[in-house]
Amino acid sequence: MRTLLLVAHGSRREASNDEIRSLASALGRQSQTRFGRVDCAFLEIAEPSIPEAIETAVRAGAGEIVVLPYFLSAGRHVAEDIPAEVERKRREHSDVEIRIAPYLGQAGDLPRILLGLSDL
Amino acid sequence: MRTLLLVAHGSRREASNDEIRSLASALGRQSQTRFGRVDCAFLEIAEPSIPEAIETAVRAGAGEIVVLPYFLSAGRHVAEDIPAEVERKRREHSDVEIRIAPYLGQAGDLPRILLGLSDL
Repeated sequence: MRTLLLVAHGSRREASNDEIRSLASALGRQSQTRFGRVDCAFLEIAEPSIPEAIETAVRAGAGEIVVLPYFLSAGRHVAEDIPAEVERKRREHSDVEIRIAPYLGQAGDLPRILLGLSDL
Repeated sequence: MRTLLLVAHGSRREASNDEIRSLASALGRQSQTRFGRVDCAFLEIAEPSIPEAIETAVRAGAGEIVVLPYFLSAGRHVAEDIPAEVERKRREHSDVEIRIAPYLGQAGDLPRILLGLSDL
């Protein structure tokens, strides 16, 4: 089973964390058969943490986990913190393929999306 | 003339600010005739600031300025700080229409974009 894990920074503002949870739900509905499970995780402040969410996915039978950073730029969080947490879980679960997808800011479609918003 | 102003937070990491500048350039190329000018501005740390960028647009002849928040959630920056800076410039330039578009996190296309990234 493939699991998609949407990873956000985490906020003190619970409404922002709930936005991420809703987005993960929307991803789950739209992913159809590509992912058996879509969850979210937070780097800081909110729960579940990245290791907790990976652990939950492994226990639920994930053979492949795609970690998708919901970040706009390649700062320290994207370049170092997320890879470090993922690497620790990879060592614990060498039978599970855990990979990190490009972060949101790398999406080639962003200019089109932004131009669409500018008309609203 | 319509100007699109992409507003990001601003980072101590100059490469992140350059990502925003590149994105604004890409928006300029893709906007075709919808915007005569596309610029970026930063809420903190980097330059130009929002008031500076609005001033530049007005001096270049903008009759309408669309401020587009490049933010993923509706925290204090999106809900308070950006509207406050825009409101100050609106009062100074009552002949220019300055409006704030929905922030990136509100884009309905985000789930599709994220699922696309998960395949890369």
